Amino acid sequence: MACPAFPHRHLLGIEGLSPGDITLLLDRADEAIEVSRQVEKKKTTLRGRTQINLFFEPSTRTQSSFELAGKRLGADVMNMSVASSSVKKGETLIDTAATLNAMRPDIIVVRHQEAGAVHLLARKVDCSVVNAGDGAHEHPTQALLDALTIRRNRGRIQGLTVAICGDILHSRVARSNIILLQALGALVRVIGPSTLMPAGIERFGVEVFTDMRQGLAGADIVMMLRLQRERMNGSFVPSVKEYFRYYGLDSEKLAGAAPDALVMHPGPMNRGVEISSEVADGAQSLIREQVEMGVAVRMAVLEALAGHLPNR
Amino acid sequence: MACPAFPHRHLLGIEGLSPGDITLLLDRADEAIEVSRQVEKKKTTLRGRTQINLFFEPSTRTQSSFELAGKRLGADVMNMSVASSSVKKGETLIDTAATLNAMRPDIIVVRHQEAGAVHLLARKVDCSVVNAGDGAHEHPTQALLDALTIRRNRGRIQGLTVAICGDILHSRVARSNIILLQALGALVRVIGPSTLMPAGIERFGVEVFTDMRQGLAGADIVMMLRLQRERMNGSFVPSVKEYFRYYGLDSEKLAGAAPDALVMHPGPMNRGVEISSEVADGAQSLIREQVEMGVAVRMAVLEALAGHLPNR
Amino acid sequence: MACPAFPHRHLLGIEGLSPGDITLLLDRADEAIEVSRQVEKKKTTLRGRTQINLFFEPSTRTQSSFELAGKRLGADVMNMSVASSSVKKGETLIDTAATLNAMRPDIIVVRHQEAGAVHLLARKVDCSVVNAGDGAHEHPTQALLDALTIRRNRGRIQGLTVAICGDILHSRVARSNIILLQALGALVRVIGPSTLMPAGIERFGVEVFTDMRQGLAGADIVMMLRLQRERMNGSFVPSVKEYFRYYGLDSEKLAGAAPDALVMHPGPMNRGVEISSEVADGAQSLIREQVEMGVAVRMAVLEALAGHLPNR
Repeated sequence: MACPAFPHRHLLGIEGLSPGDITLLLDRADEAIEVSRQVEKKKTTLRGRTQINLFFEPSTRTQSSFELAGKRLGADVMNMSVASSSVKKGETLIDTAATLNAMRPDIIVVRHQEAGAVHLLARKVDCSVVNAGDGAHEHPTQALLDALTIRRNRGRIQGLTVAICGDILHSRVARSNIILLQALGALVRVIGPSTLMPAGIERFGVEVFTDMRQGLAGADIVMMLRLQRERMNGSFVPSVKEYFRYYGLDSEKLAGAAPDALVMHPGPMNRGVEISSEVADGAQSLIREQVEMGVAVRMAVLEALAGHLPNR
Repeated sequence: MACPAFPHRHLLGIEGLSPGDITLLLDRADEAIEVSRQVEKKKTTLRGRTQINLFFEPSTRTQSSFELAGKRLGADVMNMSVASSSVKKGETLIDTAATLNAMRPDIIVVRHQEAGAVHLLARKVDCSVVNAGDGAHEHPTQALLDALTIRRNRGRIQGLTVAICGDILHSRVARSNIILLQALGALVRVIGPSTLMPAGIERFGVEVFTDMRQGLAGADIVMMLRLQRERMNGSFVPSVKEYFRYYGLDSEKLAGAAPDALVMHPGPMNRGVEISSEVADGAQSLIREQVEMGVAVRMAVLEALAGHLPNR
Repeated sequence: MACPAFPHRHLLGIEGLSPGDITLLLDRADEAIEVSRQVEKKKTTLRGRTQINLFFEPSTRTQSSFELAGKRLGADVMNMSVASSSVKKGETLIDTAATLNAMRPDIIVVRHQEAGAVHLLARKVDCSVVNAGDGAHEHPTQALLDALTIRRNRGRIQGLTVAICGDILHSRVARSNIILLQALGALVRVIGPSTLMPAGIERFGVEVFTDMRQGLAGADIVMMLRLQRERMNGSFVPSVKEYFRYYGLDSEKLAGAAPDALVMHPGPMNRGVEISSEVADGAQSLIREQVEMGVAVRMAVLEALAGHLPNR
């Protein structure tokens, strides 16, 4: 039931995980897939455990995925959307953490608009914390589900060339994926306009391209990112039409990647902005499979952490 | 447990159901009533199944009714109010459907502001879909609960005269009820101002009245509709005072119906607009019983569909 | 399982409870604490029962506390935030009550912005009702959790001097605490500016102070209240800086209380307004323990009422 081999109490990011930790989670996720494919999608691993989904930013798909993962493991799951309640009343993040902790949860899943908020919260509670996305910092379960999807379709991560394309600057998905993919031996390229490329990105050991055709050449995996216009300052928001022309993935640009290149997107997609419908719904697309892998990965993470929950 | 006799995978509308299908659901609902009257309101029919309530329009009573129905059958129920999340991010209905589908739900209950959206969604998923109201099109569980309420109070539907009164034009409740009541042999009248009457309504085989006294004469059942001012264009919104004078059900108008006529309303009521409090709370009113029948009918529908869930 | 000794069907306020009733609930809460400290936080007392949390005002902590309490007792819990749904459609409180009642819940937990709304609702339903805060009237589970926290730290309530400080006028917490603490034999003082002191408060048998130093002198327990600016009319809102100088609890003012005085706050705190961070996080503070006691008290209340749920 518990997983003594996973040595961390929290999952705050991919940074800090060893290749062995990552592989362990992917292996467990492979098993978890079957639970959701059964008629009775129900385990008892987390029976009587309390999971709180604490979302400071709304997110249909990530919150739902964690909610189903917890319920299918038998946990009592409580959703808290904080935008509409305590924040209004001026409570600090630390007080919110202390309050929740006093209710004796076993796991808190947190999404927050600021990088580092999840780490701060984790230091203030006795339970396990899972980062469901913090600012432009990390989104570790997204990177894990992406890796699981790749591994199931290619059999490995090692040695693949993965091109991550789009708004690298604002993307926690990009950041977590770069760390994970490199840890498992992939070659990672990032592609995007220079205004959406973080300064010093080269120090992560990635190849940087501002020309999409060059960046895609021979890539095994093409990971598109959502254009996060809601995170941008007015002056840097590109026009949709221009953006699509230079950085939108269409069949013609995809033809420059490896012949059997696979296409991924973390969702929700802006069709016609960063990806054409033809590609999104085409034979090379793994986009829907990624969502299914999301539930499996989150089940695996919750189960792995269950081995470290305080014995109270 | 499963219901092999119900031949449909989805419940998208009353249209397309045979009288036998309808009767089967009403018979099962009759049995389901007892579950909610027990101390332990719990069955295991849907244990380990995932039910998603996907509401693009808010609705306290319909969503609650489906949530309790699912939970009392043992399902894991997940509510998703979409107005406040993905729609903001520009995701299409089809992408939302694909995303949810990949999470392997067994049943999706959908309310949407546009007619036809639920049918579209049903074509994109592998699970069962229940229409909880789509635009001005259909609201089949409302019609089923209305029929169940009538049948329990009159012993039959066949041969009764049912007058549906008010804003016929914008009412999915009216539409579903007309189809169901006629399928089971009732005589249906519709009453309302000509501005709130759909063009060509006569082709449904109903009698059309713009004078409420004429329309109510001798009616066995008086079904009032909510004045849906939020669905109207400015120019056609009637004044509340005028509306109540001509089309509001009060004791005096009700006296023109059959002596033991029964009064119904799908809720929430605009007291003093389409119905007087005296009538709403009077001895002839079935309005509260309708709500109880709502939970029973939804349990029956969920159980009937369980027989058709994909074997995965 | 049931609690035949608790003689009330509802918990609408502390008013009307005997000292024996209160002590019974506190004793049961003492036992309930252990449930939440176990690995498997789960009892079956309310298995198959339906608990509805009906919140007309948002409240992260109170709603969460009731939700966890219900789930840990095995109930099916349904949250309804009414601000965003039926109220928009113009439904009355009584119609909402009748609608919910028809869905056959066992317990409805209600928060409402108007004093008396919860009593009104309780008269219209067949199930048990718990007041989770109604206007400036009562918040009985808060007073019970405060009493539990005091009793566990001092061994008794009898004979203690409790100073309740701040916005007495708008505080249902103050009102419920005054009644409960006096019922169990404490001496209660209230401290606050005269503009935030209800007229005639002396008739409750409390000592009234407008000078905080005088009011705190020798107090065993210092209960701070949140400055509820959202409940105030513009003209009476004090400036935050002025308020903190005269009525904010800091180390210097606290030094005037008994040497081992304990500090409490119902949360969420306005740090730097009614309390300094030094005191809030200091050794004398019980603020986090109060939250844990909140879940235990609510479990005790739900269990006590379970003995009186209608046998249907």
